[in-house]
Amino acid sequence: AVRLRPATGALITGGFWAGRRAVNRDVCVPEGWDRLHEAGNFHNLELAAARVTGDYVNDLPFLDSDLYKWLEAVAWTLDDPDLGSGPADQLLRRLAESTELLGAVQQEDGYLNSHFQVRFPGERFVQLPWGHELYCAGHLIQAAVALHRSTGEDGLLAIGRRVADLAVRAFGTGPGQVDGVCGHPEIETALVELYRETGERSYLDLAVYFVDRRGHGLLGDGRFGRHYWQDHTPVRDTLTAEGHSVRQLYLLAGVADVYVETGDATLLAAVERVWSEMVATKTYLTGGIGSHHRDEAFGDPYELPNERSYCETCAAIASIHLSWRMLMITGEAKYADLLERTLYNGFLAGLSLDGKRYIYANPLQVRDGHVASGDDGDYVRVPWFRCACCPPNVMRLLASLEHYVLLSDEGSLALHQFMTGTYSAEVAGGEARLAVTTDYPWDGAVRIRVEDGPDAPWTLALRVPGWAEGAGLTVNGTAVGGGALDGWWRVERSWAAGDEVLLTLPLEPRLTAADPRLDVDRGCVALERGPLVYCLEGVDHDGHRLDDLVLAADQPLVSAAEDGELGPVVVVRATGAVRGRPAAAWWPYGSAAAVAAPAAEPAALTAVPYFTWGNRAEGAMRVWVPSA
Amino acid sequence: AVRLRPATGALITGGFWAGRRAVNRDVCVPEGWDRLHEAGNFHNLELAAARVTGDYVNDLPFLDSDLYKWLEAVAWTLDDPDLGSGPADQLLRRLAESTELLGAVQQEDGYLNSHFQVRFPGERFVQLPWGHELYCAGHLIQAAVALHRSTGEDGLLAIGRRVADLAVRAFGTGPGQVDGVCGHPEIETALVELYRETGERSYLDLAVYFVDRRGHGLLGDGRFGRHYWQDHTPVRDTLTAEGHSVRQLYLLAGVADVYVETGDATLLAAVERVWSEMVATKTYLTGGIGSHHRDEAFGDPYELPNERSYCETCAAIASIHLSWRMLMITGEAKYADLLERTLYNGFLAGLSLDGKRYIYANPLQVRDGHVASGDDGDYVRVPWFRCACCPPNVMRLLASLEHYVLLSDEGSLALHQFMTGTYSAEVAGGEARLAVTTDYPWDGAVRIRVEDGPDAPWTLALRVPGWAEGAGLTVNGTAVGGGALDGWWRVERSWAAGDEVLLTLPLEPRLTAADPRLDVDRGCVALERGPLVYCLEGVDHDGHRLDDLVLAADQPLVSAAEDGELGPVVVVRATGAVRGRPAAAWWPYGSAAAVAAPAAEPAALTAVPYFTWGNRAEGAMRVWVPSA
Repeated sequence: AVRLRPATGALITGGFWAGRRAVNRDVCVPEGWDRLHEAGNFHNLELAAARVTGDYVNDLPFLDSDLYKWLEAVAWTLDDPDLGSGPADQLLRRLAESTELLGAVQQEDGYLNSHFQVRFPGERFVQLPWGHELYCAGHLIQAAVALHRSTGEDGLLAIGRRVADLAVRAFGTGPGQVDGVCGHPEIETALVELYRETGERSYLDLAVYFVDRRGHGLLGDGRFGRHYWQDHTPVRDTLTAEGHSVRQLYLLAGVADVYVETGDATLLAAVERVWSEMVATKTYLTGGIGSHHRDEAFGDPYELPNERSYCETCAAIASIHLSWRMLMITGEAKYADLLERTLYNGFLAGLSLDGKRYIYANPLQVRDGHVASGDDGDYVRVPWFRCACCPPNVMRLLASLEHYVLLSDEGSLALHQFMTGTYSAEVAGGEARLAVTTDYPWDGAVRIRVEDGPDAPWTLALRVPGWAEGAGLTVNGTAVGGGALDGWWRVERSWAAGDEVLLTLPLEPRLTAADPRLDVDRGCVALERGPLVYCLEGVDHDGHRLDDLVLAADQPLVSAAEDGELGPVVVVRATGAVRGRPAAAWWPYGSAAAVAAPAAEPAALTAVPYFTWGNRAEGAMRVWVPSA
Repeated sequence: AVRLRPATGALITGGFWAGRRAVNRDVCVPEGWDRLHEAGNFHNLELAAARVTGDYVNDLPFLDSDLYKWLEAVAWTLDDPDLGSGPADQLLRRLAESTELLGAVQQEDGYLNSHFQVRFPGERFVQLPWGHELYCAGHLIQAAVALHRSTGEDGLLAIGRRVADLAVRAFGTGPGQVDGVCGHPEIETALVELYRETGERSYLDLAVYFVDRRGHGLLGDGRFGRHYWQDHTPVRDTLTAEGHSVRQLYLLAGVADVYVETGDATLLAAVERVWSEMVATKTYLTGGIGSHHRDEAFGDPYELPNERSYCETCAAIASIHLSWRMLMITGEAKYADLLERTLYNGFLAGLSLDGKRYIYANPLQVRDGHVASGDDGDYVRVPWFRCACCPPNVMRLLASLEHYVLLSDEGSLALHQFMTGTYSAEVAGGEARLAVTTDYPWDGAVRIRVEDGPDAPWTLALRVPGWAEGAGLTVNGTAVGGGALDGWWRVERSWAAGDEVLLTLPLEPRLTAADPRLDVDRGCVALERGPLVYCLEGVDHDGHRLDDLVLAADQPLVSAAEDGELGPVVVVRATGAVRGRPAAAWWPYGSAAAVAAPAAEPAALTAVPYFTWGNRAEGAMRVWVPSA
């Protein structure tokens, strides 16, 4: 059922992402340990282990999962070729200390959840809608699997298995079992991964059960309706992406995983349907998803407000997880296109350039005169959150990023992301190894050197992003024709070590418009260059209100490499104007003549990559700019 | 300090508003009694009076205020000339029963609040941020004042005075007093009204104190920040409309009232400033306000999302209250213009045509495929709400509507709204009385007959709305020149009983555009006719998705009177098209060519008055329509 398999080896060794991963390794992950202590996550577990006294900190029920995601990040970071031995030793000590603590918290029958053990000791598996017990269990299992894969360490895996074994006994339709699902999906994909890691079939069966039982109203209406937790309709009948974005996408990732192991085509069809609906009508240009702050949810089709875009960083991560799974299942390049877009924009903006601050919701527009309305880090990055799901989620994705570059099938290696490093995969005849060198996304040249591989012919499949019109390809200096078909440029030949392939992706800045049904973007353009979405920031525009700027769509766009406050970036300069104010004095509506703006003053516009916004100053920002 | 005074007499006797008031009188108010019983409001008060046992119903702290607003509606309804004697007797019995109950609940020192008496008996005046104690007290006082004015009945007034006297003793900076303000303004305007009704100066002084003490952080940050309850800056320093919309406008109404009684010009300047900022940058075409569902708050300047417009019905009412006060204070017609717009659109849409259902938030757009996210009556009218602030607020405004028609000053009568009825006011030399006859807003002819008045010359000032270009005026059949100046057409002469004035307001349908800074309305037009905003509904468009419709701005608009499911209305027909779907398959963004819609099919568009939307069927609706 699966078209493409994960690489057998992958190391990111340089270039853009090595820089971001260095920040993650040297700043985010080490500081995460401190933040988790300050925020009470360890204190709460120590309470549950009866090692300290005091009050449980924070009434959110899923604090344990912050630690689990951090542990998963540690697991993958231990694979980082540039991790020094001192930091590695420190991580291993912290890992051992955490594992020991979790072992002490875990009850005899495998139960492990500090929130319920401390605050609701008698209420195991009864607060399913909001309790996040299985969600937390899922993240524990994912961390355990990651650690086992990266280091072979099985202490955490044993703890995770005991948690899973308890869930297998506790949930189901048999006598004495709880017939229910968790209000926040996550356990499904974790159970499939644990099945893969251990071969224990009951884990897969439980994942199937959770997928099957969702959509039958077991969770009740809750505060936001059944759509919120995707309990409004059975998975196989679902037509549209609904409700809480992270819940929807974690669920779909689990459904895709269950499909892979069971071959149940009705599940695949549902995921394809919902993904398509989501992407066509409910996804921002940045790949971000979620249109409502109130319920962190998808909006209606084409409801994508820019100032109130929610675009939770965790939802971007969930989208990447899902697209990656669907890419492997189908081999369709569109999934890799969305993955790339989300990675460079909707996801990456979630972390400050220095790695010290995170943002929860990623707006596509911040108005001049914005007033924060009391959210944790609303429109500005902060060191941590009361609800700190995003920071360790960022860490685990960056730490595991090398897995998202190369896939393979019987006869081909499929390079779907462009990151400097070495990647190997099985093809018929043996393992092939590639070395990739690129300054992407700043430069469009991607050099691929065949390091090793079987003698028999195999195909090198290079993804050509949808925006890359006019891409070129040479093999050992000779141009190759044919071009990309359905997003893949495939070259089949007998490869020899030392063969050099050069993929050239045109990185001219471009103006992008939106489907006319996207009301909020009407009459606007966005600037893009390669995989990057750009934005205007107030700080680059001389005190003008961004609300007053327009972009001249018929004037040239100029790329300029800079290395200033934002580090090495390519900015894009455009010609525009500062619009005057309409004559209509007190009321902003009227005849076309009454609200027409008077003559505009020319202005030079500077656009910076969206992922860098808000790193220099607080202030206005916008991705979509009125065009003239 | 006040330019215009309230009329001395006013009766609405026919036409459009008599119809809406009949529904209020015959359906809303009588059914309100039943709803208040079903929802537990009476039960809670009976609990507080120790007449029943059981649990307090609903954990919202302001349920008493629902009853108070209903009592205020009853007070004004008793003035309705078309109220029959049977219904009048029933209202008087219910009024007496309610007053007796409130008297039984009231404690010896005047305290009266069922929520705190039953649920938090020891916590009087300590939960000021969220407790709504003074808010409830304010609504009680307003009901008492209304009843005293309309009937002379003083039983409720005595109860209200005891509540106010307690507040006077309890609040202030003296020893043993609480130095604080209520998280929800309302008491300020009530205290000024009570001062006017009783002459007791301490009520006014307390109102001044509450206005002065706001903006000093006494309420803390709360969940949504200090802006939420306008505690971020002292009233006199406020530049912008911020936070919870109803709180902001109730506060400003109180500030305006305090200005009227104290002449403190710094207060007037603040209200004028904030009103102007709100209207220019934070008000929807319908007069609705509030851009966020999450905190029911104003957004940033120009942040007016159509699908997520909050536009709480109560906020429209608050806006009407404020504009009316500012109209009296300044005499400026713009306040009457906004009042009218809000009354016919943002307010009136809050009630179903049959008077049986209410809506809390009034969207300007409902998408095809809209999914409710668990709100009380999100995007659809329902009989009542868990948080039922809006229904009795609708009732009290409709019941008191005759007060919002005519004002006067020394030398003139100012007719600022056009409703069939009789209105009288004092001018120099005596009382003048007018009889107004009109089919407005369906027809633009407003006939004003002078019924009586002093012999000396006085001025009849007729408001000419900003949209009414080409208005005409005759006196006894003879055209009068001059036209409107600053929104008023003033005719000074010696009037005789029987003089007939005919104001003709052109009601051609018109296309309205928005200030270019209003991103969400870019490239769209709205249909308006007279004071009415129009909208498209899915039910009128043959199963086409409204997302696919465009309006041909260069084609004629045709008005058509109908009397079908919507009752007597004028609909507007326009020429438009159904847009094709762009070729771009899976991703809704791309080059202008990629997202351009293919050829459109012609379509006939039918627009209905916004206030009638959602009365025939659930489905899509939009006010702003893309124009081609």
